[in-house]
Amino acid sequence: MATAGKVIKCKAAVAWEAGKPLSMEEVEVAPPQAMEVRVKILFTSLCHTDVYFWEAKGQTPMFPRIFGHEAGGIVESVGEGVTELAPGDHVLPVFTGECKECPHCKSAESNMCDLLRINTDRGVMIGDGKSRFSIDGKPIYHFVGTSTFSEYTVMHVGCVAKINPEAPLDKVCVLSCGISTGLGASINVAKPPKGSTVAIFGLGAVGLAAAEGARIAGASRIIGVDLNASRFEEARKFGCTEFVNPKDHTKPVQQVLAEMTNGGVDRSVECTGNVNAMIQAFECVHDGWGVAVLVGVPHKDAEFKTHPMNFLNERTLKGTFFGNFKPRTDLPNVVEMYMRKVNRNRQIAAAWSMVASF
Amino acid sequence: MATAGKVIKCKAAVAWEAGKPLSMEEVEVAPPQAMEVRVKILFTSLCHTDVYFWEAKGQTPMFPRIFGHEAGGIVESVGEGVTELAPGDHVLPVFTGECKECPHCKSAESNMCDLLRINTDRGVMIGDGKSRFSIDGKPIYHFVGTSTFSEYTVMHVGCVAKINPEAPLDKVCVLSCGISTGLGASINVAKPPKGSTVAIFGLGAVGLAAAEGARIAGASRIIGVDLNASRFEEARKFGCTEFVNPKDHTKPVQQVLAEMTNGGVDRSVECTGNVNAMIQAFECVHDGWGVAVLVGVPHKDAEFKTHPMNFLNERTLKGTFFGNFKPRTDLPNVVEMYMRKVNRNRQIAAAWSMVASF
Ligand SMILES: NC(=O)c1ccc[n+]([C@@H]2O[C@H](COP(=O)([O-])OP(=O)(O)OC[C@H]3O[C@@H](n4cnc5c(N)ncnc54)[C@H](O)[C@@H]3O)[C@@H](O)[C@H]2O)c1
Ligand SMILES: NC(=O)c1ccc[n+]([C@@H]2O[C@H](COP(=O)([O-])OP(=O)(O)OC[C@H]3O[C@@H](n4cnc5c(N)ncnc54)[C@H](O)[C@@H]3O)[C@@H](O)[C@H]2O)c1
Ligand SMILES: [Zn+2]
Ligand SMILES: [Zn+2]
Ligand SMILES: [Zn+2]
Ligand SMILES: [Zn+2]
Repeated sequence: MATAGKVIKCKAAVAWEAGKPLSMEEVEVAPPQAMEVRVKILFTSLCHTDVYFWEAKGQTPMFPRIFGHEAGGIVESVGEGVTELAPGDHVLPVFTGECKECPHCKSAESNMCDLLRINTDRGVMIGDGKSRFSIDGKPIYHFVGTSTFSEYTVMHVGCVAKINPEAPLDKVCVLSCGISTGLGASINVAKPPKGSTVAIFGLGAVGLAAAEGARIAGASRIIGVDLNASRFEEARKFGCTEFVNPKDHTKPVQQVLAEMTNGGVDRSVECTGNVNAMIQAFECVHDGWGVAVLVGVPHKDAEFKTHPMNFLNERTLKGTFFGNFKPRTDLPNVVEMYMRKVNRNRQIAAAWSMVASF
Repeated sequence: MATAGKVIKCKAAVAWEAGKPLSMEEVEVAPPQAMEVRVKILFTSLCHTDVYFWEAKGQTPMFPRIFGHEAGGIVESVGEGVTELAPGDHVLPVFTGECKECPHCKSAESNMCDLLRINTDRGVMIGDGKSRFSIDGKPIYHFVGTSTFSEYTVMHVGCVAKINPEAPLDKVCVLSCGISTGLGASINVAKPPKGSTVAIFGLGAVGLAAAEGARIAGASRIIGVDLNASRFEEARKFGCTEFVNPKDHTKPVQQVLAEMTNGGVDRSVECTGNVNAMIQAFECVHDGWGVAVLVGVPHKDAEFKTHPMNFLNERTLKGTFFGNFKPRTDLPNVVEMYMRKVNRNRQIAAAWSMVASF
């Protein structure tokens, strides 16, 4: 493209200070360096993680900064050494990368790349320790390697998933964070057997996607648990068959679920970030074979506590990061899954767009 | 046999009171009732669990009682409805049973039979709520359905594993508890991949068997962790390749292990019963793929505590009961494994007999 190798001037929503409204500014976006790509962002959504680091409570503030990490775009130009992507490719930026070289990337089980794993404290490119954004020559920090609240952004090639160009970017942009996280937590990690019973704690975007994942895997009872009963109607569209509001019970929710399921659920997926819900999600699985999966991001001082006998009675507890999807390898397939589904299931399409408006 | 259907008088070591020396008494052993078998015990060993319930600290005392659960014997007679066992069969009593009918017995994953799961509070037969032992007409309580400190004992058929009659009962008697527990924890639950690194916490009988299981599974580094350095020499014979005594370090042992292994071990198996060791065993596994398995029986007030991020970083924590072996289905195969091994490995044979003397 005509802009390749040149600085691009474009609009970006810049956070100048913690908790202060973002302001639309003209920023300069430098060309991509070695192993980097510059992407024109067409759609971006807002996630709790953006808000959390914008508020910057209990974190080292890093401002001015460009937030944003759930997005869809098109490659504008590529830096030296980039062979897997070319201008015009449709891509999803991902807040956590895949270098394809480290022990994590080489392990079939992990997606926690040593080089490109999410780093909320780094505001610069990994290659040269500098920012590609500036205003009047003054650098503006990046956020989790994506900074999608800008018309153009520069990313490490390992943080960019190339997808089917026919996929509608306005819809699939939400697949680069919470939706894939919840979906993968169910289908890659909890793996509910056909006909099994699954509890989903927390029915936000992540929990709805986890319920959908449980349904895809073939679970026959999917029990949604949320303190907010207004979530239940939406959750029904994503496969939840029953609901429990812990506030409606005097007994601990573990016990309520055990009574509903003859001893406990086969699988549970925790999507709240609340440590009490994490403990409940673990303790509500059936002894002998139950598996609980933690997804929610806990408070930094949270402590997970339980009696070790709960483990010895043959329960399993796992956590997942980004639903155990490897971003570059697996995300294109998640997009394909969406494409197939959307063709045969209008209801789900309607729900995705609801989620996109979060 | 001539004794079938009749009361047998024989010697037994009776515990009259908590913590008081056992005394050898003549007891009367009633014939087996429906779904029960009477077994002549030829060899029995002593396990911590016997001692623990004999001391009866913090438990409801149940005396007089006949302890013992690691043993080998021969079926003397069988009660009504017993078809899988016949007089003369060589058997191992097991403290936890397998009814083959309940959801746990039908699950491929669980061995925690609903009907015959270990119950340390029950001192009578499950069929009629009575004891089969008496002295001068006064009942003597059973222990975990086995009570092997008696020349004859009566057990539910579901707590008796029929084994190869060529197996030496004086050796294989120890397979009915701690040895299978440790072995199974490694081969059935931790499942270390070939070439992987495994940490074993606690090098008692259970830990040594867990180390042996890790070696059988193909682990190439097996790091033994014990506060008692005198265990290390023995542990080398069971496959441990390296040792860590937490007392030799000022850093937490999790960190010591992480430094030795470039970020953490692939698998860990905790065989101490100490809750701090449980936490260490979990926290020392590698993020992305590490699996920790708890085996030790914790104090009743113990609390397992960790930061939930340790899970979210893709670590797995599981517990196991009796190494996930189904007693009647799997124990005969463990005996076969021993038989094959003993033929080609004198060193291990020597070690088993060491363990038998525990
Ligand atoms: N692990 C990852 O890779 C990853 C990625 C994205 C998001 N997340 C995390 O997943 C969690 C959910 O994200 P979201 O966007 O769906 O959040 P959300 O706030 O939209 O939804 C959370 C839901 O949980 C419910 N809830 C809160 N506490 C509860 C409790 N104690 N019991 C039952 N319900 C409770 C709330 O009512 C709400 O409906 C967050 O912690 C988020 O940080 C994790
Ligand atoms: N889950 C089951 O089915 C099952 C069956 C049998 C035994 N067990 C349990 O397994 C555990 C081990 O049994 P055992 O017979 O081998 O016991 P043991 O006492 O012979 O061995 C325990 C070893 O752990 C070491 N140890 C104790 N605290 C430690 C710590 N904090 N760090 C490192 N090492 C420590 C001791 O020095 C000792 O060598 C016990 O808790 C027992 O009750 C469980
Ligand atoms: Zn997000
Ligand atoms: Zn990598
Ligand atoms: Zn024992
Ligand atoms: Zn059963």
